[in-house]
Amino acid sequence: MFITTLIFLFALTIIYNIAHDPLSVSVGFSIIGGLITCKLVPEFKESFIKAKLTGKDLAKDDKEPPIPECMGVICATVYLVCMFFFIPFPFMEWFSGKGKISQSEEFHAPTFPHHKLGEFLAAMLSLQSMTFLGFADDIFDIRWRHKLFLPAIASIPILMVYYVNFGVTHIVVPIPLRFIFGRIIDLGFLYYVYMSMMAIFCTNSINILAGINGVEIGQSLVIACSIAINDFLFLNDADPAVEAHLFSLYFILPFIGVSFGLIIYNWYPSEVFVGDTYCYFAGMTFAVVGILSHFSKTVLLFFIPQIFNFIYSCPQLFRLVDCPRHRLPRFNPSENKLEYSRVKIQKPLKKPASFVLDLFELLRLVKVDKGETSIEVNNFTLMNLLLLKIGPLHERTLAILVVVIQILASCLSFYIRYHLVHFFYEVI
Amino acid sequence: MFITTLIFLFALTIIYNIAHDPLSVSVGFSIIGGLITCKLVPEFKESFIKAKLTGKDLAKDDKEPPIPECMGVICATVYLVCMFFFIPFPFMEWFSGKGKISQSEEFHAPTFPHHKLGEFLAAMLSLQSMTFLGFADDIFDIRWRHKLFLPAIASIPILMVYYVNFGVTHIVVPIPLRFIFGRIIDLGFLYYVYMSMMAIFCTNSINILAGINGVEIGQSLVIACSIAINDFLFLNDADPAVEAHLFSLYFILPFIGVSFGLIIYNWYPSEVFVGDTYCYFAGMTFAVVGILSHFSKTVLLFFIPQIFNFIYSCPQLFRLVDCPRHRLPRFNPSENKLEYSRVKIQKPLKKPASFVLDLFELLRLVKVDKGETSIEVNNFTLMNLLLLKIGPLHERTLAILVVVIQILASCLSFYIRYHLVHFFYEVI
Repeated sequence: MFITTLIFLFALTIIYNIAHDPLSVSVGFSIIGGLITCKLVPEFKESFIKAKLTGKDLAKDDKEPPIPECMGVICATVYLVCMFFFIPFPFMEWFSGKGKISQSEEFHAPTFPHHKLGEFLAAMLSLQSMTFLGFADDIFDIRWRHKLFLPAIASIPILMVYYVNFGVTHIVVPIPLRFIFGRIIDLGFLYYVYMSMMAIFCTNSINILAGINGVEIGQSLVIACSIAINDFLFLNDADPAVEAHLFSLYFILPFIGVSFGLIIYNWYPSEVFVGDTYCYFAGMTFAVVGILSHFSKTVLLFFIPQIFNFIYSCPQLFRLVDCPRHRLPRFNPSENKLEYSRVKIQKPLKKPASFVLDLFELLRLVKVDKGETSIEVNNFTLMNLLLLKIGPLHERTLAILVVVIQILASCLSFYIRYHLVHFFYEVI
Repeated sequence: MFITTLIFLFALTIIYNIAHDPLSVSVGFSIIGGLITCKLVPEFKESFIKAKLTGKDLAKDDKEPPIPECMGVICATVYLVCMFFFIPFPFMEWFSGKGKISQSEEFHAPTFPHHKLGEFLAAMLSLQSMTFLGFADDIFDIRWRHKLFLPAIASIPILMVYYVNFGVTHIVVPIPLRFIFGRIIDLGFLYYVYMSMMAIFCTNSINILAGINGVEIGQSLVIACSIAINDFLFLNDADPAVEAHLFSLYFILPFIGVSFGLIIYNWYPSEVFVGDTYCYFAGMTFAVVGILSHFSKTVLLFFIPQIFNFIYSCPQLFRLVDCPRHRLPRFNPSENKLEYSRVKIQKPLKKPASFVLDLFELLRLVKVDKGETSIEVNNFTLMNLLLLKIGPLHERTLAILVVVIQILASCLSFYIRYHLVHFFYEVI
């Protein structure tokens, strides 16, 4: 720990001396954050096992020892500490009179951009709340219907700052719908509901596309990189959105750093599990960035696989169809491969259940085995669907497949965002 | 949980409708916070035991079942959520154009007091960081010399906001010392070191005056009430410090509320323990309030017993004299009373150790039993000293005694602050 601190302080000094551009500093912090995570995770393994924070790898042999669970908390803490040290940098130039961050309105004003600092602090507060609540969830196993609302609580600070800094609650209606709603609708209070729903969605949708080695961080990294690429597209001084996208980069780059530091140990075969903490932390980072940098729609575009997985899961999540405790793919030890897992539903089926099953059968999304007194059907998750369509896969192959799908979805999103957008809105 | 939420929302509506004065709202939230804590603590006992967050009461019979540990995290979480909901209220008037919070400079200005909101957010961020780190400490048992620095990390946000909002780093020198230093010294960077030292001191000094039922919350409540009383003394509109003291009250009152909610279960005989989390949370609340409301010296005055206990403990804390794992008073089951605990030191004594022992003997602060090859001496804590001077006491009596000493010390502090101050400074 002492040596880590020294390295950290040393790196800090270098950053301070050579980089006057906050973006380079952010890149520096991302690398440092990744290195520290990479160093701390193995050091903390023993403490986690001692604190009984362990889990069983359900897709491995029974003989494997328990694995430290909830390591996402290390990664999130490193992220938060890095951000604590980073936050002064975007304001540094302002102190020397150049006012980089405040190039739009404050440049000529004599006051410090307090509203900008408020955004950083609120974002940190939301991220930290989410990490804290996620950690509490990992330890106390909060019930599903309670923990759904934790992200809403954690999003209060950013909503507050959104209210005082922007307060914009009207949305531009997509062209095809304008004949109904007109060009602009003011959602008013509903806009804040939308934003906290977004926080709930981003966090939980990552949390339900999870369960095999490396898949949580894999998908999060793809989403984070997509957001970062999208931000870089706006980084020319002429663009009025440059400040918002810089803000986004400051939060996304260190996230990418610490996630890389953690995936080294979480990729197949996992030495550590990331826990709900990581999923919540990752989802909240995306929600914060989307909300405070005003591109929540673009962020949601990068969630296409999660949106599909969520809608597909809904019948089980809302108990129209029976939902077992775990919906993970089933491990077949003889072949060392994962197969899709199934749930048994007692006959007679309730109306909503049989409607859902008929619909999904029509869409070829399920495989139903009808028995005498019950029917068996695959669990409704993206991973089970993949295994159903492709056949049994090795755990690593499945994780790679999910990541590849996420990448393809991001490509599609960029295409929608920069080409198809003309059918919906006037400008890019 | 659902009913709690309903009650909470109901209370919120009442608060919103009848109270346009943020201070009354704060009182309302303090009561709600206390009630919720009071309701949640027993509900969470089972979860804490299931999560193996339990401790043994060292001053009870061996047969007692383990007791849920680290319940301070519930109390701190309730506090933070209450504050999340409270923060908009001081700014409410501003939205309606009356500008209560900004009565000094912003009243006539067209801009929202972003710097004020920044203070709230930074304070929340520091408190939450400290709670989070305290909770991590309770779970992972971080080493003593590492955890000393956690409060310094947690204080970064408030130091940052202090820098941009005030940036005042000069101190007025007390009159008797002016012939050396002059009237004013600019401490510069050292002032920030002083403030983070204050955070380290406030948190750890409460943490080392601990270990018997109810004593952590007892002392914290006395300090909090003293700060609140001191704040109320400034609440007349003529005083320029009224805004700072309102800020302090907004943070202290809910703290008093949730602490009362918790002490019900933590007072002798304890049903729950509060853990390091509570001590850190309490200490950080005092540090935040002292720093951002500019009365850190007054806050430190209320810490007289803690300062004494810290200085008295120093020889053991810094290992000049042997320090056992626990320095709690020793439980004597036959009399059901606590006696002072002792530490055995091997002869020959090292120079610093014998110097300390001689000094403390001179001051009548220790009782030394000299043996053939070793000497025995009471552990250097305030509670052991009390038991040494007064004789064995029942656990509850000792806790009451500590609280009474804390109250007397607060009276002394008020006397120093409002009467003796004339010997040191020109104004109150």
